[in-house]
Amino acid sequence: MSKAERTKQKIVENAAIVFNKRGYFGSSIADIMRLTGLAKSGIYHHFKSKDEIAVAAFDYTLGLILEAALAKVSIQETAIDRLHAFADSFKGFTAQPIGAGGCPILNTAVESDDTHPLLRTHVQAAVNNLRALIASIVELGIRQGELADTTDHEKVSTILFVTIEGAIMMSKLYGDDTYLDLAIAHLHDYINGLATVK
Amino acid sequence: MSKAERTKQKIVENAAIVFNKRGYFGSSIADIMRLTGLAKSGIYHHFKSKDEIAVAAFDYTLGLILEAALAKVSIQETAIDRLHAFADSFKGFTAQPIGAGGCPILNTAVESDDTHPLLRTHVQAAVNNLRALIASIVELGIRQGELADTTDHEKVSTILFVTIEGAIMMSKLYGDDTYLDLAIAHLHDYINGLATVK
Repeated sequence: MSKAERTKQKIVENAAIVFNKRGYFGSSIADIMRLTGLAKSGIYHHFKSKDEIAVAAFDYTLGLILEAALAKVSIQETAIDRLHAFADSFKGFTAQPIGAGGCPILNTAVESDDTHPLLRTHVQAAVNNLRALIASIVELGIRQGELADTTDHEKVSTILFVTIEGAIMMSKLYGDDTYLDLAIAHLHDYINGLATVK
Repeated sequence: MSKAERTKQKIVENAAIVFNKRGYFGSSIADIMRLTGLAKSGIYHHFKSKDEIAVAAFDYTLGLILEAALAKVSIQETAIDRLHAFADSFKGFTAQPIGAGGCPILNTAVESDDTHPLLRTHVQAAVNNLRALIASIVELGIRQGELADTTDHEKVSTILFVTIEGAIMMSKLYGDDTYLDLAIAHLHDYINGLATVK
């Protein structure tokens, strides 16, 4: 990485933290200046606008989350175990640096849906990626006979995604991971219920 | 209602819409002035601060949501039917005036958890009320023999709450109620799975 690339990366990593904690509207370039120790001109040398920083920060964080989920999923052989691993990859999420401000998908979706079409598009793309990952596991499960032919990947990905997102919100709200743990346990029951062999 | 009370109510109702769409940090007194046609002094005659308006608007909206859920729940006799009615009370939520900006619990939780302790306390109180409602139905179900003695109301209320919240977020993100419908259908299966008599 060149020095310019390292500076750009430092801005993205710090912006990711502040945007995820305080939201797009609640964050300012001053916050990023304070965290990076850069002057305003130093930040705008690398990015045209607050929007461009927000989008880069969001995409960077989502890349990390997807990567972490993929790492846990890909070491499992069966589709059922992969679905369990996907659910488990969010265990302790709010205690991780990346999840300290809650889930960036949830945070950015809620903030952007009525106010920020560009960010909203990036959130939709991120959720599309997570859904595609789950859909590919469901299709593998059908091919391998682990799941019934009629299993609807749209339904499975919706249930997994919304349960985890709602639970991250609830655990953050109370500062108590019990709710996320209960939700993940519920998903394990749900996934076992999908298996053709009980 | 006196004229002063009507004005105060008008501020709360309009603030509820703007805060739910744009969030606490994204909303300004100017937005509320525009919607109500009141001068700044007219608004601050009734409320000490933006905080006080935000809290009143949140509590007002949550009162409406709890009332709507209670109205659907209370006409059902069995606990199982009450749980189904609770889940169904969120059908079409994002198309209702109150839900046009998404779920105020979700929106305010996500925004306030790291930034606004006062609002966060009000969100916790609102979620406590919803959980207490579900807990009371579960206890009724155990007394009436519809649910096993071992049914954990904490788990049931968590699953119902997080699934609905996550699904409202997803449906708002895509502008497509399919996800909320899928999540509610999943909750009906889950509730049926709790029944001692299948």
